[in-house]
Amino acid sequence: MGLDNGLNISIGSLKKGKRNLITDVKGVKVGHVTLNDGKIKTGVTAVLPHEGNIFKEKVMASSCVINGFGKSMGILQIEELGTIETPIIMTNTLSVGTAATGLVKYMLEQNEDIGSTTGTVNCVVTECNDGRLNDIRGLHVKEEHVFEAIQNASEDFEEGAVGSGTGMVCFSIKGGIGSSSRIVELDNKEYTLGAIVMSNFGSLKDLTISGDKAGERIYGQQQEKDKGSIIMIIATDIPLSERQLKRVSKRAVIGLGRTGSYLGNGSGDICISFTTANIIKHYSDTNIVSMKMLDDEAIDKVFRAAAEAVEESIISSMYHAETTVGINGNTRKALKDLL
Amino acid sequence: MGLDNGLNISIGSLKKGKRNLITDVKGVKVGHVTLNDGKIKTGVTAVLPHEGNIFKEKVMASSCVINGFGKSMGILQIEELGTIETPIIMTNTLSVGTAATGLVKYMLEQNEDIGSTTGTVNCVVTECNDGRLNDIRGLHVKEEHVFEAIQNASEDFEEGAVGSGTGMVCFSIKGGIGSSSRIVELDNKEYTLGAIVMSNFGSLKDLTISGDKAGERIYGQQQEKDKGSIIMIIATDIPLSERQLKRVSKRAVIGLGRTGSYLGNGSGDICISFTTANIIKHYSDTNIVSMKMLDDEAIDKVFRAAAEAVEESIISSMYHAETTVGINGNTRKALKDLL
Amino acid sequence: MGLDNGLNISIGSLKKGKRNLITDVKGVKVGHVTLNDGKIKTGVTAVLPHEGNIFKEKVMASSCVINGFGKSMGILQIEELGTIETPIIMTNTLSVGTAATGLVKYMLEQNEDIGSTTGTVNCVVTECNDGRLNDIRGLHVKEEHVFEAIQNASEDFEEGAVGSGTGMVCFSIKGGIGSSSRIVELDNKEYTLGAIVMSNFGSLKDLTISGDKAGERIYGQQQEKDKGSIIMIIATDIPLSERQLKRVSKRAVIGLGRTGSYLGNGSGDICISFTTANIIKHYSDTNIVSMKMLDDEAIDKVFRAAAEAVEESIISSMYHAETTVGINGNTRKALKDLL
Amino acid sequence: MGLDNGLNISIGSLKKGKRNLITDVKGVKVGHVTLNDGKIKTGVTAVLPHEGNIFKEKVMASSCVINGFGKSMGILQIEELGTIETPIIMTNTLSVGTAATGLVKYMLEQNEDIGSTTGTVNCVVTECNDGRLNDIRGLHVKEEHVFEAIQNASEDFEEGAVGSGTGMVCFSIKGGIGSSSRIVELDNKEYTLGAIVMSNFGSLKDLTISGDKAGERIYGQQQEKDKGSIIMIIATDIPLSERQLKRVSKRAVIGLGRTGSYLGNGSGDICISFTTANIIKHYSDTNIVSMKMLDDEAIDKVFRAAAEAVEESIISSMYHAETTVGINGNTRKALKDLL
Repeated sequence: MGLDNGLNISIGSLKKGKRNLITDVKGVKVGHVTLNDGKIKTGVTAVLPHEGNIFKEKVMASSCVINGFGKSMGILQIEELGTIETPIIMTNTLSVGTAATGLVKYMLEQNEDIGSTTGTVNCVVTECNDGRLNDIRGLHVKEEHVFEAIQNASEDFEEGAVGSGTGMVCFSIKGGIGSSSRIVELDNKEYTLGAIVMSNFGSLKDLTISGDKAGERIYGQQQEKDKGSIIMIIATDIPLSERQLKRVSKRAVIGLGRTGSYLGNGSGDICISFTTANIIKHYSDTNIVSMKMLDDEAIDKVFRAAAEAVEESIISSMYHAETTVGINGNTRKALKDLL
Repeated sequence: MGLDNGLNISIGSLKKGKRNLITDVKGVKVGHVTLNDGKIKTGVTAVLPHEGNIFKEKVMASSCVINGFGKSMGILQIEELGTIETPIIMTNTLSVGTAATGLVKYMLEQNEDIGSTTGTVNCVVTECNDGRLNDIRGLHVKEEHVFEAIQNASEDFEEGAVGSGTGMVCFSIKGGIGSSSRIVELDNKEYTLGAIVMSNFGSLKDLTISGDKAGERIYGQQQEKDKGSIIMIIATDIPLSERQLKRVSKRAVIGLGRTGSYLGNGSGDICISFTTANIIKHYSDTNIVSMKMLDDEAIDKVFRAAAEAVEESIISSMYHAETTVGINGNTRKALKDLL
Repeated sequence: MGLDNGLNISIGSLKKGKRNLITDVKGVKVGHVTLNDGKIKTGVTAVLPHEGNIFKEKVMASSCVINGFGKSMGILQIEELGTIETPIIMTNTLSVGTAATGLVKYMLEQNEDIGSTTGTVNCVVTECNDGRLNDIRGLHVKEEHVFEAIQNASEDFEEGAVGSGTGMVCFSIKGGIGSSSRIVELDNKEYTLGAIVMSNFGSLKDLTISGDKAGERIYGQQQEKDKGSIIMIIATDIPLSERQLKRVSKRAVIGLGRTGSYLGNGSGDICISFTTANIIKHYSDTNIVSMKMLDDEAIDKVFRAAAEAVEESIISSMYHAETTVGINGNTRKALKDLL
Repeated sequence: MGLDNGLNISIGSLKKGKRNLITDVKGVKVGHVTLNDGKIKTGVTAVLPHEGNIFKEKVMASSCVINGFGKSMGILQIEELGTIETPIIMTNTLSVGTAATGLVKYMLEQNEDIGSTTGTVNCVVTECNDGRLNDIRGLHVKEEHVFEAIQNASEDFEEGAVGSGTGMVCFSIKGGIGSSSRIVELDNKEYTLGAIVMSNFGSLKDLTISGDKAGERIYGQQQEKDKGSIIMIIATDIPLSERQLKRVSKRAVIGLGRTGSYLGNGSGDICISFTTANIIKHYSDTNIVSMKMLDDEAIDKVFRAAAEAVEESIISSMYHAETTVGINGNTRKALKDLL
């Protein structure tokens, strides 16, 4: 729900979607598995691009690796083929392998042809390092958590210290999952663009909320080197080509920078964007297929929507998170407790 | 005409177009201005993507910078916007600026809106260094040569030591302009892909003609360091997205490598590809536009066509070139005289 | 001098250099030629990386094409070889060709070997579209202006509506040339990073000055579509590898975004960075050469310096510009007159 | 041992290393685990960059994604940071997740600081699809196989249908693991460059052995669509910067193309290169560090070595493989049985 029932803050000028969540894009669903038990502060979050068989009906996609200090899987093929063919999984850095195996098993179960009569599958698994609060060396994420996160997927989902965001730290305070959406009018019709982030970057002194340098005031709490990361996923029903989806992905950095990020060395900053308006069939009846895209002269409002939705998602991830005590008694305060 | 009336050699397995030239792609035309007078061995070659107003009706395009030791202009915007909006000019390295100004003046003359009621124009000017035969420091290319090359454009055009190829050196012997085409069947319909190259790279010892290491036999003539470049332009009427045009551009390296290139340090190896099947209007009536692309599962034959057409174009550029004596008496023999 | 004697504003937290200009980096000089006569509002600005022969002693460099709607020349080779070997020229979009020819002639004059006993030269010419104030179709920049700008180069130089910035428009008001610098301490020694920008982007409503959304207050003056561009050049004496210089170039977007940019479709946003700490000789005595780079763990303060210097440079370009009346009576107010 | 005791064929002109294996580069070791039992035809191969702690003393590295239809992990961070900090693992496509988890556990065991007092670790896991011979849906690779492959690593290792190459198919016949090396003289000293490949691409008709179109002769056996992939790893002790390592990686395509590849749509063609000459310490004593690189004017012989070593490695992978009967009785003949 972004910041709607939250901070008395407005980010940007565009109209928001009904839920102010990425799931305002029709068909998109999000599910969490939260692992929160003593020093275990981690989990899995799944983003489903649509309600059908994603492998058979892929969504057109692109990405932008803003800072590549990251271990995400599946980006190379998104760039080459311009499609996403699995749910997008978010988890902690050292659990990418396990989540990938879980996702492989899920995809094999759903598709008897994979690895048999057709090729393999490109699993998209993204990550941040939750080791400041979580016993990340314990490798507590299991393959079945991927199945559960996918099964939990819904149009309504929680933000804050949940799912893969359970142990994440943003601007030295508690981060996690945040989401927001914007409405864009094109050819007299309303379209939706939504974002979801897993936030785990930044130094408190730099925190900026809609232009207000809040971090300079509350600084002193827990100053840390910026060594986290952020995963940003943008979904839309606006018809865009792969090239245009890459352009949109690049604009995530505007939202990110406005919250105070300097794209720190250790921060794997990655944005993945997809559109549900161009579906690519795994088995096409024809060699030549039709698709829709935008006149680039009309794309500025999509860029603005992307920047605003990402900026609000980041602040929302912190706004919804609760103070958390993790491994070795490490504590990260909630933004609500500091403002 | 590629190698059709030439070497008794077949490159690849695909069917060739009627002329075996890039102009087998309907609407594409090529024009030369040849400057060949004593130590002046240079010129301008223009490739016109279609017969209409190219600025108002842009062709969808992409490129691949295989080795970026080159000074071509206009590539950045092709990558960002996925379009070409001017004729593509080829000339010598130190004349890129003059050719660009000539092309700007041509575009301003054709379009009163440029720089006035609309934005500017992205001139595409490519180059190789013809300084081994040409008095390149003399800057003999003039702005009006760009106008003339465009006006000379035709479906029939010469290959070899003509136009911008007049002073080029390939595999230490005489290079220049070469072209070829291939037919690709998709959905039971025939489409055409054509290539044109300006060849100026390689060491004689490495010259390979359809797998035959001819260079090892004729080596001894004039061994030189590989320090040239090659410009490769691919045109097609196959519907391709920008991403797919980039994939096609990348396959030019296969044709290039098979002629004996090791992608030498000093060789600016650049491929630009465009399709006449997706026209992007400068002034669109709607925000959302339709386009066509290939199912990627059907793209392998397009890749093969690109590799074959580029390979044949390179050999053809040498096959059609005559022995040339240039600046300081520097001489480069014709391939025909060596085989 | 950035904003030092100007707005009572502080951008960022790092210490500034002596002049608060890019020329705080030892050896760097900047020169202008201003063409300001009625409807002629354009010019040339030259940035010299050091005082020696730049072709013979190249500076290590990299770039980032943030948004490629631009016509700059020379970027491809910077990326491939990691060097800059000429002064960097800034001018208007349609004059890139003429400026390139001027720069070629300057380089030929300085180096008898170019195009004769050695290869050619990679001229770096960057641009923005000043057509809102300047008679850009008139092509008023001449080759000799490049020579003059280089000859005018000095450690002290003007900011605002001068040189290539004479006709530029930023956030719908008067933009132009701006510069700033920051001090970074590494291994207990002070190093300098400086930036210079040619600003020509943005919509007034979005203008943000050090977090203050000033544009929302002064908006109403002249709202325009964001269709300009920005060239950002970063110089430093910090030892960085080509990969690290690319990372630094990418951080320019943080400074840019904080002034209010959404990386508009029509804005060619390009950053070029170089270091004077690694000189690459054109004629090397040995195959293997030594260089210095940073431990990436220490690079965060360089990123911060880059973002701060670019942000301040942009605001400074507007702060120093005077209200300008150009072609067709088009007027762009000075920031000083609006605040 | 490449083709030394094999085909009476010479690939290229450069001198070979002592073993004609990637392990001719001092410190590099390779280990296999072969899973060959009925329908199980798969395995794990590990490449160790040096004999020390790779996380604490990283090797400088870069990569080239020639065709991104692939699921390899770890490439993004190699590109951003220019280092490899783990052994490089090769396995089948659906086992990347399991191999990654195995590698994470190995790295955690070797380094108590990972995920605790320092950040996480970038595991490099590469893959091809061995599903034509292997029961790939059975997920037979286990985490412990990664430990075993690393423990098995040695300067002497087998080529052909072993390790991760057990079930691979190349040019429709039996592929697998191949390796070769070349000697390069720089500043009067001998350096070594070696390659290892996991080959799984191509159509038999296209197979070309040192220019001989052998595939056209033996074609008829088993023609298949080119839908495989190839992983190419290049090691050297030549001092190269990250930019130069990327340039070297790009030249792998020359060797690949000469064996007959058209870079098929479905082929994930990836090259990773590293040098043992520039070691990057995880814990550096100083902010500024020294490194060595090549004068780019001397790099052509390194490019040639890379192309030759990759070409020979591919042919060697087939030359050393035995005829294999896999899942569903699928059979792929040995090259030796066809020539």
